[in-house]
Amino acid sequence: MNERPAIKPYVIGLDLGGTNSVFGIVDSRGEIKATTAIKTQGFDNVEDYVAAAVEALQIIIDQVGGIGYIKSMGIGAPNANYYKGTIEHAPNIVWGKGIVPLADMFSKALGIPVAMTNDANAAAIGEMAYGVARGLKNFIVITLGTGVGSGIVVNGQLLYGHDGFAGELGHVTMVREGGRQCGCGRTGCLETYCSATGVARTAREILSKSDKPSSLRELDPEKITSLDVSIAAEKGDEVANEIFRFTGKMLGEACADFAAFSSPEAFIFFGGLVKAGELIMKPIREAYDAHVLNFMKGKAQFLVSGLDGSSAAVLGASAIGWDINPNE
Amino acid sequence: MNERPAIKPYVIGLDLGGTNSVFGIVDSRGEIKATTAIKTQGFDNVEDYVAAAVEALQIIIDQVGGIGYIKSMGIGAPNANYYKGTIEHAPNIVWGKGIVPLADMFSKALGIPVAMTNDANAAAIGEMAYGVARGLKNFIVITLGTGVGSGIVVNGQLLYGHDGFAGELGHVTMVREGGRQCGCGRTGCLETYCSATGVARTAREILSKSDKPSSLRELDPEKITSLDVSIAAEKGDEVANEIFRFTGKMLGEACADFAAFSSPEAFIFFGGLVKAGELIMKPIREAYDAHVLNFMKGKAQFLVSGLDGSSAAVLGASAIGWDINPNE
Repeated sequence: MNERPAIKPYVIGLDLGGTNSVFGIVDSRGEIKATTAIKTQGFDNVEDYVAAAVEALQIIIDQVGGIGYIKSMGIGAPNANYYKGTIEHAPNIVWGKGIVPLADMFSKALGIPVAMTNDANAAAIGEMAYGVARGLKNFIVITLGTGVGSGIVVNGQLLYGHDGFAGELGHVTMVREGGRQCGCGRTGCLETYCSATGVARTAREILSKSDKPSSLRELDPEKITSLDVSIAAEKGDEVANEIFRFTGKMLGEACADFAAFSSPEAFIFFGGLVKAGELIMKPIREAYDAHVLNFMKGKAQFLVSGLDGSSAAVLGASAIGWDINPNE
Repeated sequence: MNERPAIKPYVIGLDLGGTNSVFGIVDSRGEIKATTAIKTQGFDNVEDYVAAAVEALQIIIDQVGGIGYIKSMGIGAPNANYYKGTIEHAPNIVWGKGIVPLADMFSKALGIPVAMTNDANAAAIGEMAYGVARGLKNFIVITLGTGVGSGIVVNGQLLYGHDGFAGELGHVTMVREGGRQCGCGRTGCLETYCSATGVARTAREILSKSDKPSSLRELDPEKITSLDVSIAAEKGDEVANEIFRFTGKMLGEACADFAAFSSPEAFIFFGGLVKAGELIMKPIREAYDAHVLNFMKGKAQFLVSGLDGSSAAVLGASAIGWDINPNE
């Protein structure tokens, strides 16, 4: 190692979610020194959002000694364009319509460089910097949350594609005829089956198609969540287990196609659904082994994110910040 | 440009095919200065193959002034492992069973560095060095021949994955239930529908399922080739056109999934089927536009290889050779 003493030892990480915007000041070992948060949605326009963010940030910036100790800022956000530092047509953010130059706005307000990427890419960079992907150069992070996101790392670098929007694996088509309607306007996308919302849809479908007894029948079908399914499955509920087998099988088959693309050494799963543990991971691995090219069998690891859920996204975003002029 | 006079102005390119092995000595502008060829299959073991190859090569090496003028050698071959310089378990080469260290063997016999990659990757590098992909940094070459191969370029670099075997897009699963049997041992692979062989299978299926008149009915169904279909389609044969629409639709849908992966600026098609021109390219573009993520619509170009078929593979292989220690 050839490290000289860092003059600016911290970066700011911002996990910009649909509900909350969580900020952390992070050192180079991935320790979060201070955090704060504001609501993402309580603002009519992006100017008010940035002003409120900077006001909240000022307090924790002062806690670590002032802006002079902050090297840069990294943002993980939905619909983020890495090349341009913009949020583009984010359907779930009130002030995110059109093209919003958020990185530039924070950079001007704080006087430091700011980089931005989408939340799944931030998760991938976070895993590489601080998580289970340390030392790996070819892997795919799949985030199983409200949607299905992905961050693809190839030869140690995040895959951005020509326009910064590569890695939309939640929107590969898994069911070509009669697939579920997706929020993207198309049908049959992986996300419609394997997101938390997709799992709830599967639950309603399976419950309505059979008479098998299940504790899930005690719930209002329209209000079943993936967490309900997870709790029932852990108690041995057969229908709940069938729901996870269906979900895992589709994820495993999708990963077999992803392997034909980038031949990763690991798939890393991240997000709420992963809390189901082996209930979901086992059918993923089994479907993968049954569907991947023969000569690739047994080569890829299936890992679960090792980062603490609440701080992982902030760490991932902060890692984007370290990537700005890394030699400075 | 900051070029110093090249001391070793040539590389050897070897297009190692299932039938013929074609060698070319190529300069840095992609001009083929001399060529020779041997049969690939006429040898019981790889030692005899390499000995015959070196004997044939010696004549054209002498024509350009001797081995002192040759910088290196590049090989494009089926089942090639780029990282190890080996051919691994090549089902269609008599001496290609097991793991064959072909790059090392040529390197020892000729006294120059030798690099090897699979044929589709060689085509991608050839397109980037000398073809329609000059100046592009994110694109996918899809070769439509006996099989369907692919070379994926990301950020100006070929995507090899952790083991050198990335880019097997002929083996993504397009039909999940009741798909066609593939040579890889699985079912429903893109290759079983969109290779030259796949087109012939589609012809037999469509002819047997309907009574529509077609000039293809005059041929022995078991002997119909994609070239027959191409000739019939150009004459306006409706069944032949239907075959190309089916093939193009599946390729376009597959490309829509590939776009969700690496968001390329271009798809480049290469190989025998491409000679059908707009008969195949139009349904590819239409299916792509109908199936790709909305915000990606209209962003990717659909190109046909600009390299002359007979020399493209040799040029591609030679370009692998230039990549060895490019600063020397």
